[in-house]
Amino acid sequence: MRVYDLIWKKREGGELTQAEIAFLMKGFVSGQIPDYQMSALCMAIFFQGMSFDECAALTVAMAESGGTVDLSPIPGIKVDKHSTGGVGDKTSLVLLPLVAAAGIPVAKMSGRGLGHTGGTIDKLEAIPGFKTNIPRQEFLAQVSKIGIALVGQTGDLVPADKKLYALRDLTATVESIPLIASSIVSKKLAAGADAVLLDVKYGDGAFMRDYDQALRLATTMVEIGNRAGRRFKAILTGMNQPLGIAVGNSLEVQEAIETLQGTGPSDLTELCLAFGGYMLWLAGQAASPEEGEAIVTRILKSGAGLAKLGQLIHSQGGDPKVIDDPALLPVAPVVHSVVAEAEGWIAQISCREIGLVTMKLGAGREQLHDPIKPDVGIKFYSKLGDCVKPGDRIAEVYAGTREEALIAAAELRKCYRIADKPIHKEPLIKTVI
Amino acid sequence: MRVYDLIWKKREGGELTQAEIAFLMKGFVSGQIPDYQMSALCMAIFFQGMSFDECAALTVAMAESGGTVDLSPIPGIKVDKHSTGGVGDKTSLVLLPLVAAAGIPVAKMSGRGLGHTGGTIDKLEAIPGFKTNIPRQEFLAQVSKIGIALVGQTGDLVPADKKLYALRDLTATVESIPLIASSIVSKKLAAGADAVLLDVKYGDGAFMRDYDQALRLATTMVEIGNRAGRRFKAILTGMNQPLGIAVGNSLEVQEAIETLQGTGPSDLTELCLAFGGYMLWLAGQAASPEEGEAIVTRILKSGAGLAKLGQLIHSQGGDPKVIDDPALLPVAPVVHSVVAEAEGWIAQISCREIGLVTMKLGAGREQLHDPIKPDVGIKFYSKLGDCVKPGDRIAEVYAGTREEALIAAAELRKCYRIADKPIHKEPLIKTVI
Repeated sequence: MRVYDLIWKKREGGELTQAEIAFLMKGFVSGQIPDYQMSALCMAIFFQGMSFDECAALTVAMAESGGTVDLSPIPGIKVDKHSTGGVGDKTSLVLLPLVAAAGIPVAKMSGRGLGHTGGTIDKLEAIPGFKTNIPRQEFLAQVSKIGIALVGQTGDLVPADKKLYALRDLTATVESIPLIASSIVSKKLAAGADAVLLDVKYGDGAFMRDYDQALRLATTMVEIGNRAGRRFKAILTGMNQPLGIAVGNSLEVQEAIETLQGTGPSDLTELCLAFGGYMLWLAGQAASPEEGEAIVTRILKSGAGLAKLGQLIHSQGGDPKVIDDPALLPVAPVVHSVVAEAEGWIAQISCREIGLVTMKLGAGREQLHDPIKPDVGIKFYSKLGDCVKPGDRIAEVYAGTREEALIAAAELRKCYRIADKPIHKEPLIKTVI
Repeated sequence: MRVYDLIWKKREGGELTQAEIAFLMKGFVSGQIPDYQMSALCMAIFFQGMSFDECAALTVAMAESGGTVDLSPIPGIKVDKHSTGGVGDKTSLVLLPLVAAAGIPVAKMSGRGLGHTGGTIDKLEAIPGFKTNIPRQEFLAQVSKIGIALVGQTGDLVPADKKLYALRDLTATVESIPLIASSIVSKKLAAGADAVLLDVKYGDGAFMRDYDQALRLATTMVEIGNRAGRRFKAILTGMNQPLGIAVGNSLEVQEAIETLQGTGPSDLTELCLAFGGYMLWLAGQAASPEEGEAIVTRILKSGAGLAKLGQLIHSQGGDPKVIDDPALLPVAPVVHSVVAEAEGWIAQISCREIGLVTMKLGAGREQLHDPIKPDVGIKFYSKLGDCVKPGDRIAEVYAGTREEALIAAAELRKCYRIADKPIHKEPLIKTVI
């Protein structure tokens, strides 16, 4: 087998076999296949695409390139959840305690935020004392004991993906659906769950702005997962405005607690209950997603989800009292109100821009190793379709200094478009694949 | 300027500026831009193409990446000639002495053969004693003295092309018209001629099998050359059968001598006279290509072309007596006749395959540094459209051993297709660009 021939084959639109893809990944990780051949191949894939079978072969080859997590000692069907990332997406903080309380073992590895999107690990670290870096054995023991653990990704998983992504990032070959899908799913396979629920976001604040692209990504990931012998389901959800009210780490933890208390924003609550229903169904604990949703709704009302979050925080070194007293979470020194300047209906909120404004406040990072501030962010009191009058408070900026608050407020105002008639509101959950 | 952004721009079908292309080439040659970015860019170019302006910018950047030949001390308009390569293409050996005899200074650097195609330098080296490796000053002095010198390409010209071609050769990005055109023309620009006549061959035995592809290549090269301030002309010629009768180094030198004696094959003679006409016209020594052709025809008949070849051979250390006594050229020990097996008209000769059969006899090389044999080859006594009967001698194999001759003869027979009615013969010269 010659790498040249395989690049040529893909360039001409041919389909690589499983053996060919395994050969490429093995050679690439070991350093025998040079970066310049792999980057040319990635560019050929960008233009020619890959079949579902090729994607599955690539995904499995990447997943097997390093260590994998063995969840088999934990009884039951393990269900993972993955979001492609959005603005104000604190779903995991609400959803996972709910499904853990329903008896699904949650052994979850999460990522950090980058650019305009946040990350679950950053949010959890806003809780004083919370540790996200836990040895593998301790992590699994915690899942066995309390049914849930939430940690950062460890370095030994999927080295092929790390190496390939770094190369794609330098060669303008990131934006390829087959490569994105393989990258995401390889990490899910290595993380060991039996089933995975994917939250594929689309819209201005999502990685995939376009619905059709998001649909292709979702379909590809589900096809890959199923070919790899796992049960995958994808839900496409809108990200044309922040999810819930809060954007920013500490503010989002607070909102997650309120949601588990039953007083959270309706969009976030709706999403978590629907996702919970699907996760219970995937885990075989409900005959249908609807039945699963009914179970999760009962758990939310019972307070068992909130209690499970408390257990999780306690077990990972955080102060569990935050679930009763959110004032224990860090709060930014400056809070500045933003008011509407015109009368009408909110027709557009530039969601990606909002993510960037929040990042600049310090809630997120521009580069992988930038420090972040847990306490800053923005609360959105008016959402798409709401009717506002001049002087109405539409948002609150939580900032480190008054100057930073004023800059963010000025940028925030530019993110809104007010129309003179009501707009059509899209449903939050668009499609299930 | 970031390389990433330039790859991205090209990937999305954008046009790179002259400054961007100069930045890329400078960084690539100096090693600051890594191979993996350049190979991704080449693959993006493969799919998105390049405008003539982009090609010209790339070509000039490559031409200026190393030393260039200054032909200005030689008076007059210097006209170079380039063939994209074929089977039995000994045009330069006939054409260049003819135009030199007409007073055009010929300072020509040529290449060696690879794969199914031959190279002028290999052919010249079949002449006992002929030296093709001559220092630059001596080379120029010879042109000033006798009006012609024919040497191998020197290492310091166009290092960017060498480095880029080596990378393309490993990453399946060779077959891109803009990159092929830029590579060829960059070497012509660096070689210093004022005008260049391109012989772009198409058909089974050519680098470009397809006429439309060859036409695109020819047009691109002419556009590049003109943008770079040189006068370029391209002639598209058919390569669906060997040119002339002989294929193989010594055999082709012999045929070139016969052609300069006025007794060569008609197709080769026709081509050399037409090309000569264009070269005289490009050099400003004829008002039209037709007038130039008439001049070259007179020179051929006068024997001045043959005498010029003798001068060239003598000046570069070869035995000039070969022009009167071709028996002084090396002859293969075994000569084996191949006869027709069916009656009819020759409808097809697999020209590429013939090039490969000749290569396997030892006339050419599979790898860049393989040794070659000067004396082996094949003579073709029947060409496309000829009527043959069983037993007619259609070819002669010149081989090192009887076994090699028999193997080649068997393969040669498979190269012919005999039809039961006459075929339409394409003109040798198809188009002038």
